[in-house]
Amino acid sequence: MFRQVFAGDPGGADTYSESIQGLKFSVNFAWTLLSAFLVFNMQAGFTFLGAGFMQKKNTLNYLSMSFIDFCVGALVFWLIGFGLMFGGSGLAPGLSWGNRFIGYSGFLLLGDSYDVSTAVLWMFQIMFAATSCTIVTGAVAERFKFHAHIIYSVFVCGVLYPVFGHWMWGKGWLELLPFGVGSRDFAGSGLVHGVGGLTAFIAAWMIGPRYGKYNPDGSPNVIHGHNLLYIVIGTLTLIFGWFGFNAGSTLAVTDLRVSIIAVNTFLAAASGAVTLLYLSFRITKKSDIIMTCNGALAGCVAITASGAYVPPWAAIIIGIVAALITRISLYTIETKLKIDDPVGAVSVHGANGLWGLLSVGIFSDGTYGGVKGLIVGSGWQLLAQFISCITLIAWCFSVGFLFFFVLKRTVGLRVPVNVERSGIDVYEHGTSCYPGM
Amino acid sequence: MFRQVFAGDPGGADTYSESIQGLKFSVNFAWTLLSAFLVFNMQAGFTFLGAGFMQKKNTLNYLSMSFIDFCVGALVFWLIGFGLMFGGSGLAPGLSWGNRFIGYSGFLLLGDSYDVSTAVLWMFQIMFAATSCTIVTGAVAERFKFHAHIIYSVFVCGVLYPVFGHWMWGKGWLELLPFGVGSRDFAGSGLVHGVGGLTAFIAAWMIGPRYGKYNPDGSPNVIHGHNLLYIVIGTLTLIFGWFGFNAGSTLAVTDLRVSIIAVNTFLAAASGAVTLLYLSFRITKKSDIIMTCNGALAGCVAITASGAYVPPWAAIIIGIVAALITRISLYTIETKLKIDDPVGAVSVHGANGLWGLLSVGIFSDGTYGGVKGLIVGSGWQLLAQFISCITLIAWCFSVGFLFFFVLKRTVGLRVPVNVERSGIDVYEHGTSCYPGM
Amino acid sequence: MFRQVFAGDPGGADTYSESIQGLKFSVNFAWTLLSAFLVFNMQAGFTFLGAGFMQKKNTLNYLSMSFIDFCVGALVFWLIGFGLMFGGSGLAPGLSWGNRFIGYSGFLLLGDSYDVSTAVLWMFQIMFAATSCTIVTGAVAERFKFHAHIIYSVFVCGVLYPVFGHWMWGKGWLELLPFGVGSRDFAGSGLVHGVGGLTAFIAAWMIGPRYGKYNPDGSPNVIHGHNLLYIVIGTLTLIFGWFGFNAGSTLAVTDLRVSIIAVNTFLAAASGAVTLLYLSFRITKKSDIIMTCNGALAGCVAITASGAYVPPWAAIIIGIVAALITRISLYTIETKLKIDDPVGAVSVHGANGLWGLLSVGIFSDGTYGGVKGLIVGSGWQLLAQFISCITLIAWCFSVGFLFFFVLKRTVGLRVPVNVERSGIDVYEHGTSCYPGM
Repeated sequence: MFRQVFAGDPGGADTYSESIQGLKFSVNFAWTLLSAFLVFNMQAGFTFLGAGFMQKKNTLNYLSMSFIDFCVGALVFWLIGFGLMFGGSGLAPGLSWGNRFIGYSGFLLLGDSYDVSTAVLWMFQIMFAATSCTIVTGAVAERFKFHAHIIYSVFVCGVLYPVFGHWMWGKGWLELLPFGVGSRDFAGSGLVHGVGGLTAFIAAWMIGPRYGKYNPDGSPNVIHGHNLLYIVIGTLTLIFGWFGFNAGSTLAVTDLRVSIIAVNTFLAAASGAVTLLYLSFRITKKSDIIMTCNGALAGCVAITASGAYVPPWAAIIIGIVAALITRISLYTIETKLKIDDPVGAVSVHGANGLWGLLSVGIFSDGTYGGVKGLIVGSGWQLLAQFISCITLIAWCFSVGFLFFFVLKRTVGLRVPVNVERSGIDVYEHGTSCYPGM
Repeated sequence: MFRQVFAGDPGGADTYSESIQGLKFSVNFAWTLLSAFLVFNMQAGFTFLGAGFMQKKNTLNYLSMSFIDFCVGALVFWLIGFGLMFGGSGLAPGLSWGNRFIGYSGFLLLGDSYDVSTAVLWMFQIMFAATSCTIVTGAVAERFKFHAHIIYSVFVCGVLYPVFGHWMWGKGWLELLPFGVGSRDFAGSGLVHGVGGLTAFIAAWMIGPRYGKYNPDGSPNVIHGHNLLYIVIGTLTLIFGWFGFNAGSTLAVTDLRVSIIAVNTFLAAASGAVTLLYLSFRITKKSDIIMTCNGALAGCVAITASGAYVPPWAAIIIGIVAALITRISLYTIETKLKIDDPVGAVSVHGANGLWGLLSVGIFSDGTYGGVKGLIVGSGWQLLAQFISCITLIAWCFSVGFLFFFVLKRTVGLRVPVNVERSGIDVYEHGTSCYPGM
Repeated sequence: MFRQVFAGDPGGADTYSESIQGLKFSVNFAWTLLSAFLVFNMQAGFTFLGAGFMQKKNTLNYLSMSFIDFCVGALVFWLIGFGLMFGGSGLAPGLSWGNRFIGYSGFLLLGDSYDVSTAVLWMFQIMFAATSCTIVTGAVAERFKFHAHIIYSVFVCGVLYPVFGHWMWGKGWLELLPFGVGSRDFAGSGLVHGVGGLTAFIAAWMIGPRYGKYNPDGSPNVIHGHNLLYIVIGTLTLIFGWFGFNAGSTLAVTDLRVSIIAVNTFLAAASGAVTLLYLSFRITKKSDIIMTCNGALAGCVAITASGAYVPPWAAIIIGIVAALITRISLYTIETKLKIDDPVGAVSVHGANGLWGLLSVGIFSDGTYGGVKGLIVGSGWQLLAQFISCITLIAWCFSVGFLFFFVLKRTVGLRVPVNVERSGIDVYEHGTSCYPGM
């Protein structure tokens, strides 16, 4: 029988009923799906943001990478990533098999996982996988081979992200650590942004700086982007999506904490922005809008892990610290480590992914999910968070290194230097971004 | 008494109650309205997309057409279109009178149709009418008279779209066909995109190609758009809105199938994009991002009819086929038929509108709405879908031809050739799109 | 005990229950939060819109002002504005203390106001305060000092807006006027747009016109913006957000009137746009898309106060009148009063803020909230609305004048004239908006 092959409840009629329970499904479906749509729109935000940072001659290449990674990612996540990440989590029908280290059910949304509840989870989670994937794009821009980027997208959405994701969100060993309530990364500071940002670090390091970024004496040059309006619009669009990213991560609006999460997200963004605006003015006497945008995004990244657990005043502090970390990280990476990250992805997403994880262990006030940090007197949660930080770094650096090492020796990472100098757009995509102008 | 003149339930207090039933109204109102807002935002997507395809000198003209069509459309749909389309459907208060061929109640949202439920339906449906109207704009761009465009908007939103819409969604003869469950076009592949795309075909044919598009020997020239970033952002914005377009078309989130619909939409977009990216690389050795975007949109168009009825794996196949159809159609229309469609509206929306209708009859697996296609062994549904395809083509080609024929003989379709060469913006709108640059 | 310090219900578990009442909270939380996110996205709309009106050399400055005002505003509103505005309203936990003239509880979201319901209200309301603040930015653009703008943002979100807001929405004296049902400003025509637009009037007057705007004989010159696409996209994005702005202002989707509100918003926008398109064509023989956009926005502003109370046909009339008012106001302000308002903020938001307030007293049909205007035979409501208009003007003009007077004598309002001529971007922000071009 056909219905047996496609088990679960693909039509929704068994899951829904005219009752409190049925309506609860409905309202939570609505909340989670609409949040997923908002997170999808962050792709437009990343596209604007990154494109603004590009030189004109490489803009189309960035757009192409930013666009195709979520397309490839969706297919790969459907094929394998989702099953690896949520198999064994029991979060929805068809996700029964898996252990603490890896999942192995839910592939292709077939069988029991062809179900309305599983589809909600898939829809929300693919957006996060795609986000993680997109973050790296900016760090390797203006010299990365387009084909290498597609292979990398398969790798991130198929392996790197889902495995760590299983540990954190799929009833894996980090989530179940016997310290505090176990590691907590509410909406993915570490998982989404940390994985993206730390992998970006490895990738940008291995691919090397852009031609002309560093002088023979090692001092960096500023390579201007071509459109700052895109950067501001991109940042606004990202914050818009971030409300869905964070508040939607309850997967349920019957969990009324969503409102505090939204407020915290906004306050962290605001305080991060104001902090770096002030700092840029103190240092350079100019009001640096790029820094201001970075500050807002840094605040968003950091509050992503802790937004559900902390009070609003703490969100502001988390945002301020995130902004300072970003400033220091940007300086260190560019000037000391001499790694060329055109959009600042490592500093905004990577560094604050870690800070976000730690902030859970510090500011959680015990009003939600039983998570208690240092301010209410417990140090165990911070230990759990610290372990997840170490694990995150070890995972991304080791597996990321291995992947890019193999990729470099096979497909190659960089476009030829003459292409880099004349612009990747025409070479890889056959036209410039602004052909009629 | 005033309340008798404005019957129905304009305040909502009669419809709502503190009960399961009342909350059901609320959650479905929220779902449908928020989806309608997302669909409205597709106007921004179409504006970006189309503007990117324009030459710089005609960009403002495209913007103006794209903006004004939904304004005119809203007023006309309020005045007449909605009543023609949904009169007699009984879908909401005040829609009692109509037959299988035409509706005749609900005009001006007066009387019984001044009601909160009717307003939800109106709000969702006007967005679809406006979308259908906007699709044609791209195909006739860079030579269409602005006044002719306004008249055309009145015609599409007042007559062409609503009448066919009544047949399909207003308890009309296509919906009630005695084959399978009757013709099904879940969110309007045929109705919205097919009507738009096929009318675009007629319009682009009757207005003739742009000056310089074809050489004396009949070979086509490429006329470059001016901003590919707008094309990518437009595509992303359209996909964002499409989630509301498709998943919202249940008009109820108590219908939990919404999640499968959202997943299918995403997968069809992704597979369409990857297909045309691969194809463009195979053929030209360049990774063509415009083709990739076309592929994503083609997948979205095709899955619009079938997204509710098919499993995720089928959505991927539907997207792949949609992409191939688009590629063939683009070639055929430009090179064989020598019809000049600057944005590819006919191929993306028209051809895949038909493919979407047919795909319902092939891949529907019987898990939703009782719709069973060839894969579960029934051919009757495919027959019903085929009939609606033929009807759609006949309707758009005959009535569309008649309309544009009359329009050509009265107002005229084209701007003078010297205006076309120097740019429509200054002539029709008094300024260029980028006046300070 | 920690839990006593943070009273209210910050976790949401006390507020939610598995019951009709619990679900009612959930669905209304979802509605209000998602609407708030849409309103946030209006920041992107304002950014696009305003940037399009700028000269290229001042674009980055506008972007910076537009971005930072909501960041500063959020912190100030959290610190003081929210407490002043909603203290004593009793609308949510922790808002107990206040009188008819001022509120004094709810500061910093501490104590009882650390609550899930209060957080929903805060999240929605900060978006409105930020919008009000942003409106002024356009009117003073291209010559305002960046630091003065930050101080001004603190002032608007901390004092000017919240105090008038308390009178209107926080159980203040205007809301409780003994005429009709008291003054009603449903979603803030007067409060948000009126405060913004009238303050913009004072600000633009006191700062004086841009260099070169007026000839020695007093006749105005047109100073072209640099990108009309941004203006159209900005308008579309604003309308998208406006659906959340107006329909979300019920703060509850269990209030089913939301659908009529959405329909009215759309119809007012459409009729406003069509009116000014027609008018521009009649006068200049050109189809002026900037005017068309202004018309759409004018309709939105006006319907913001009355959208909940009037039938759809009245929304169309309100939109038409709003468009006419805008046209007359634009002419009067530029040519007669010789006040330089680069984006038309005073005419679109200020004048129609007043018209919106009055329209409540004219077209309200008694189907919602007991509000009855002239069309159903009552003049008392119009009196209440008239009083709120007078109060609004008096408040903004007096306090706004005082503030800008002090600001002018201390920090100063204008950049040096040589900076204004060469462009503010490099001077204030250290780079141009398009540095690589």
